[in-house]
Amino acid sequence: MLELRSRDHAEKRVRAGVLEQGTTDTLVEAAVGERLLREGLPHRGIELRYGGAGHRIAFEKLVPGRAITVYGQQEVVKDLIAARLADGGDLRFDVDDVALHAIDTDHPYLTFGGERLDCDFIAGCDGFHGVSRPSIPEGVLTEYEREYPFAWLGILARVKPSAEELIYARTERGFALHSMRSPEISRFYLQVAADEDIAEWPDDRIWAELKARLETVPGFVLATGEIIDKGVTPMRSFVAEPMQYGRLFLAGDAAHIVPPTGAKGLNLAVADVRQLTKALVHRYETGSDELLDGYSKACLKRVWRAQHFSWWMTTLLHTFDSDDAYGHRLQLSYLDYVTSSEAAARTLAENYVGLPYGSLE
Amino acid sequence: MLELRSRDHAEKRVRAGVLEQGTTDTLVEAAVGERLLREGLPHRGIELRYGGAGHRIAFEKLVPGRAITVYGQQEVVKDLIAARLADGGDLRFDVDDVALHAIDTDHPYLTFGGERLDCDFIAGCDGFHGVSRPSIPEGVLTEYEREYPFAWLGILARVKPSAEELIYARTERGFALHSMRSPEISRFYLQVAADEDIAEWPDDRIWAELKARLETVPGFVLATGEIIDKGVTPMRSFVAEPMQYGRLFLAGDAAHIVPPTGAKGLNLAVADVRQLTKALVHRYETGSDELLDGYSKACLKRVWRAQHFSWWMTTLLHTFDSDDAYGHRLQLSYLDYVTSSEAAARTLAENYVGLPYGSLE
Repeated sequence: MLELRSRDHAEKRVRAGVLEQGTTDTLVEAAVGERLLREGLPHRGIELRYGGAGHRIAFEKLVPGRAITVYGQQEVVKDLIAARLADGGDLRFDVDDVALHAIDTDHPYLTFGGERLDCDFIAGCDGFHGVSRPSIPEGVLTEYEREYPFAWLGILARVKPSAEELIYARTERGFALHSMRSPEISRFYLQVAADEDIAEWPDDRIWAELKARLETVPGFVLATGEIIDKGVTPMRSFVAEPMQYGRLFLAGDAAHIVPPTGAKGLNLAVADVRQLTKALVHRYETGSDELLDGYSKACLKRVWRAQHFSWWMTTLLHTFDSDDAYGHRLQLSYLDYVTSSEAAARTLAENYVGLPYGSLE
Repeated sequence: MLELRSRDHAEKRVRAGVLEQGTTDTLVEAAVGERLLREGLPHRGIELRYGGAGHRIAFEKLVPGRAITVYGQQEVVKDLIAARLADGGDLRFDVDDVALHAIDTDHPYLTFGGERLDCDFIAGCDGFHGVSRPSIPEGVLTEYEREYPFAWLGILARVKPSAEELIYARTERGFALHSMRSPEISRFYLQVAADEDIAEWPDDRIWAELKARLETVPGFVLATGEIIDKGVTPMRSFVAEPMQYGRLFLAGDAAHIVPPTGAKGLNLAVADVRQLTKALVHRYETGSDELLDGYSKACLKRVWRAQHFSWWMTTLLHTFDSDDAYGHRLQLSYLDYVTSSEAAARTLAENYVGLPYGSLE
């Protein structure tokens, strides 16, 4: 395991925090879910807030037995690192000159810091900006991309969440998300311009804007506190196909990116790695490349489902400058439908908690 | 009842032909459904065809007890005219100089052909291009509009339908619809350019294009026959709010238009008239204007639901020149979802057969 950043950085970097039912199940099955089950916050619904009212999407009714668990990605990373070290794994951090070689042969290898690591297979789990995907020769991959005309300004604040569940708020001022990382730490997002300058957002302005977008239903008061982290996240959709080349297998953001609205990024990465693990085990147990050869195909149906769902949640909840009056009413009509039709609410719920493994692969 | 065209024209003009469950129920309740029940073709599903396969949306499973009836709009018109005449109604055809007066007073009246008709109320059911909507003073209505970058070329052919149910086909060449009016008459539509010239479509070309778009699954052969009607229909979404002014009440296309993909135009008109009837009966029975005052509000939730559904079906099934590769894959992923998730299929089915009265008003 070669990692560009330090272990400390990897374990503290605040990223996603909503685990699908299948992701939780996978981590528990892999014996790295003990702390997750203890400290994670199980959620059985989310709220869609718009037009002066809140509407709960009730997972327990719509997708019985399936829920999400709020547990920071960095906590998952900590658990994975600890488990690997306990198993005697060789983890290398602060490795900044990794290069991939001979990936289209049976003897691929990596070089880094003057060292050479001969491999049977390489898993490229190094994110959108990593070295893995660019190591595939030009012309092999087809890339699909969409950019959105806005970004998310995200903060972490030392304050008890103002509601027990996530609140997805659509307002005329733009989208806002009320989330949390623990009973003491809240997480918030604001839709801002794509080129937003974080320097223009002192804490007071952030809280004022969050209040304007979230205190839109009677009786709801947003608790404020010390902001301990803030940043602007661009919104982008991206898929590279296929997700493999020779002995290199891409997983997670190295192969695909979704806007964070559907909370799918981390979950897709886990689904990829689950599939890759199955294929590698099959190969070492039987000598057959069949599952490895089918890795990309097996992943991509789920990838595109998540791409669509993330785009759907994003367009449902954000305001678009390009929207005419008709588009504006269309969006409200869709929200009215999603919050009044059980079938429509279930489409949101079943995607949000994650479609079961096997249903898409 | 004042009508611009001749009775013969009104009774022969080929328009919509898919009646929602509620529309059929309404006509039967109004004692104008006898022939509809005898000659209409009940359908319990439609097919979505794309990617070389057909996928049935099974109403009997998804929305038990609700279905559609294929029965031409002109047949409904015939039945309505016959019933009104039998009741001694005064129907005037070929009336081309209707004007509305004093609609914001308690004594509105119509003038036409030198005559004057004093009214209690006026129902403006005269379509998008009729005189009713423009009779409302400027500044009263808010209009919402969207145009689509394509049109439908529709034909009526003297040939037995090639399948028992409607087929909505999405292909790389554009959308096509296989429909029918009777066991001997088929109805077909082709997505064409917005400014398509019908003169460039001799019968041979139409059949060749229909075959290219519909003969995409193994074993399906499109039967051809004499084309007895053809024309190009523009695709537009439009809503005027409110749907009333003083003593004038707009209904159907006079107030709103949808692209034909969701088969909602006729059904919305019936829902409007049903609502207006209820309000007028209430007024004459009780003297209360309450339901009349609430007419527009009562109609508009269903209108916007149908606007959204029609837009949704249209964007799901048509090809858009503006679509990038990402948008193209998004559309296919959505189709895969609608045809594999029971919840998603149910959203299509419940809208297609029509949400029950009372659930939206």
